[in-house]
Amino acid sequence: MSNLVLNAAGRLVCTEINGEAAIPFMGVGKYKPTGRKYSTKIPSNSDYEAGNKLVPTLKDALIKAGIRDGMTISTHHHFRNGDLLANQIFDIAKELGIKNLRWFPSASFSCHEYLIKYLEDGTIHHIEGSMNGGLGVFCSKGKMSGTAILRSHGGRYQAIQDGEVKIDISVIGAGCADPFGNASGTAGQSASGVLGFALGDSEYAEKVIVVTDNLIPFPCVPWQIQGNYVDFVVKVEKVGIPEKIVSGTTEITKSPDRLLLAEMTAKFCDITGIIRDGFSFQAGAGGTALSVGEYFAEIMRKKQIKARFARGGSNKYLVKMLEEGLIDYILDGQTFDLDGVRSATNNPRHVMTTPFTSYNYHSKGNFADIVDVVILGATEIDLNFNGNVVSHSDGFLLHGIGGWQNCLFAKNVIMPIPLVRDRIPVIRDEVTTLCGPGELIDVIVTERGIAINPLRTDLIEKVQGSDLPIKTIQELKAEAEKLCGGAPAKPQFTDKIVAAIKWVDGTIIDVVRQIKE
Amino acid sequence: MSNLVLNAAGRLVCTEINGEAAIPFMGVGKYKPTGRKYSTKIPSNSDYEAGNKLVPTLKDALIKAGIRDGMTISTHHHFRNGDLLANQIFDIAKELGIKNLRWFPSASFSCHEYLIKYLEDGTIHHIEGSMNGGLGVFCSKGKMSGTAILRSHGGRYQAIQDGEVKIDISVIGAGCADPFGNASGTAGQSASGVLGFALGDSEYAEKVIVVTDNLIPFPCVPWQIQGNYVDFVVKVEKVGIPEKIVSGTTEITKSPDRLLLAEMTAKFCDITGIIRDGFSFQAGAGGTALSVGEYFAEIMRKKQIKARFARGGSNKYLVKMLEEGLIDYILDGQTFDLDGVRSATNNPRHVMTTPFTSYNYHSKGNFADIVDVVILGATEIDLNFNGNVVSHSDGFLLHGIGGWQNCLFAKNVIMPIPLVRDRIPVIRDEVTTLCGPGELIDVIVTERGIAINPLRTDLIEKVQGSDLPIKTIQELKAEAEKLCGGAPAKPQFTDKIVAAIKWVDGTIIDVVRQIKE
Repeated sequence: MSNLVLNAAGRLVCTEINGEAAIPFMGVGKYKPTGRKYSTKIPSNSDYEAGNKLVPTLKDALIKAGIRDGMTISTHHHFRNGDLLANQIFDIAKELGIKNLRWFPSASFSCHEYLIKYLEDGTIHHIEGSMNGGLGVFCSKGKMSGTAILRSHGGRYQAIQDGEVKIDISVIGAGCADPFGNASGTAGQSASGVLGFALGDSEYAEKVIVVTDNLIPFPCVPWQIQGNYVDFVVKVEKVGIPEKIVSGTTEITKSPDRLLLAEMTAKFCDITGIIRDGFSFQAGAGGTALSVGEYFAEIMRKKQIKARFARGGSNKYLVKMLEEGLIDYILDGQTFDLDGVRSATNNPRHVMTTPFTSYNYHSKGNFADIVDVVILGATEIDLNFNGNVVSHSDGFLLHGIGGWQNCLFAKNVIMPIPLVRDRIPVIRDEVTTLCGPGELIDVIVTERGIAINPLRTDLIEKVQGSDLPIKTIQELKAEAEKLCGGAPAKPQFTDKIVAAIKWVDGTIIDVVRQIKE
Repeated sequence: MSNLVLNAAGRLVCTEINGEAAIPFMGVGKYKPTGRKYSTKIPSNSDYEAGNKLVPTLKDALIKAGIRDGMTISTHHHFRNGDLLANQIFDIAKELGIKNLRWFPSASFSCHEYLIKYLEDGTIHHIEGSMNGGLGVFCSKGKMSGTAILRSHGGRYQAIQDGEVKIDISVIGAGCADPFGNASGTAGQSASGVLGFALGDSEYAEKVIVVTDNLIPFPCVPWQIQGNYVDFVVKVEKVGIPEKIVSGTTEITKSPDRLLLAEMTAKFCDITGIIRDGFSFQAGAGGTALSVGEYFAEIMRKKQIKARFARGGSNKYLVKMLEEGLIDYILDGQTFDLDGVRSATNNPRHVMTTPFTSYNYHSKGNFADIVDVVILGATEIDLNFNGNVVSHSDGFLLHGIGGWQNCLFAKNVIMPIPLVRDRIPVIRDEVTTLCGPGELIDVIVTERGIAINPLRTDLIEKVQGSDLPIKTIQELKAEAEKLCGGAPAKPQFTDKIVAAIKWVDGTIIDVVRQIKE
């Protein structure tokens, strides 16, 4: 392992990961990229049969794509827990005796715990992408051959664009495709809505394989993935399980505590004037975040105002607001349920976005910092408003970053979180893993009070004289510890770095160390 | 001027243009590109104000973009003869005392003859793009400081993508845009329909300026041009004259001779089985080509079949067929009239394409070779079926290539052309300027007979026993010369090369020499 240095956030991080140099976090907006974007080899039409890239099986396609030891294989997560492709790819790799692959998914789900055996037998060297559940535990225990790298959705696009991650083979599952390779998630038995998370993969991978169970005559419209980037098309029986797109976190909360958080959050936004005619908002996939949207809707109806746009992930609640006319546009990055899929397919005001348009920090701006208010969760917050979203207070890596880091650039970042989870206070002296710098996190809403980041003097001023239960974050922390009988013990780690957390600009904001068992 | 060599088409071409090396044409599909696609510098969000790229004037934007001597400035032609921007840009350049600019339009129209004064005074060094009318005459007379380069629509994208032309500043006029730079041609007083010809410019130019007279709050949907590529947004009084989008060539012909050509062409396609259920076609902007579409429609109605898709440029005739259900999709690259604009805006089956999807030859395939039949024009055809589309038999450069070269890759290329134009036979021993190799041109339809390329033995077989007036191209040439009293005199040129004609792969297929006056 390389030398360790203190980065600008005061975290001791490595300067090398998996044999490649890494840049420590330098502060928000401080690191300036140099050089030019990555680009693929110039292809020629003369090497492709007119309009026909069909090959019989995924195995044939992988072989034609030249799969071999040490390659980087990318997949996307639009089927979420209903993905059927990633596991098959590595079954084939195993069968072919391929070793040391880097798996580069846009996210992983519990269905991918199947791949642990391939991490164990050396088929997969390491994962760069979210480490959820079982995969996270495996990584935290130091069992992965290489070091994991976690990136935000935008950071993943940035890493591809900047040539930080060179994808050899991208496999893109699509609900609909034509033999030329145009592909869409908006139709077919396995419709997943959008396919934006595979955009960068299609543009920058040397070889691109589209897999579908719904092959239609050219043209497949809309071509969310453009066939001009595609090398091979494979028709299979079933590409994904759309019912499993709906994950447990995409239903509104029924917990009275969470509903209280949501209501307080909405009230805060109302009182501070964040909710105004033409405003914009983004609420994540969590039950509390979804409920906030419902309270927003109520306020908007009462005030007879509407939002200019809401950012997805889309779900039935957001779709209902769009259809009711409460929002002009949904700008959607991924569909969280089948109502989202339906709306994305049929409503021209339900607009598909990509990590490029929305989140890529190495761009001439993106959508994230245009949003007025974003509602996010966190596993931990510390006294400096720093946030953790990947590990729990027991030190285990259990979640991906998703769009969380990217969304921190919204004009107002509000986190409704319970003060205590499983008898453990959520506000800590210092987050176990740093994912987001406190300077970007504005408000913490808990059931026992609201803490505003002291940097946001404007918000502090606006709530003066209101009946909102404003407290300092120190006060909230003290209350939580009183309830739990003190701060929880710090988890014990070995010195071994098992994962690096990238900031949106590709620098290392923190690392995760192996759990001492 | 550099050495001259005979290229694979037997044309004597230069190996250097404007001081840069040029590759002679090597045969269709023979030149294999090496290296990687061009890419721009990696930007950072931190250098852009969130969601706001507005600057007061085009002049401010050009200055902020760093306009200076020798730069390459690109514009697009979606306003066709109603473009108001290109002339303004060079007025500003002149005012700023900038010299030796390369103007890189996606096409030029007669409104741009205004720029001749800037070609004369050294503000503009040379044009790479179509040389229509007065600009063509100026070029043919050897008056331009540099050598012109003419490319097809696809070749222009290829040149940008491959780094052959590095654009310093791209100026994109749009009927609709938001302050972030998302832009669309589908709304506003200056709606032009699609904006696809500016796509490559937006992706690959170092600085991108969007100009609109219809600034709307974020988001401008659909974002045909993505704000993530845009540096500056300028609001002006009027960005283009949409009425002038309609050019003279977008009305159906009334000439009985031309109607005969169109009818024979359609009949040929019917008899040879090219018109079948699910077929696809493209007809250019000429009056004859448009009429062919009408005859196709008649046949399709009679046979109760429909086309899977038709390629645009779209126009009222094509839109009518879409609305009647005779075609599933219009895949449109540019709108030729206001019905096209309306349909592209409102009909989800009127799908916008770009030179990347449709025409770029340095891609993993494109749409052009998927099309069953394309109807094209030509200024001259020779005994080897070679085609000319840029110059007249008097030697003057008078037209751009447009998508003509790209469309030659369709499965069947048919050219309905009058045997004689202005008392000059259209079939020659050898075309004055070679734009398309004869091996890609299948059928010539004239009022006195149809010649099928001997390479297309399949088509020759299919017309056997029909009442179609099949002749050899030699017979047609002889008839034309009999009518005109012999072949026309060959134009006289000096040795000076005034323009190079690129093939779709960036190689030089022919050059144009200065007219000897």
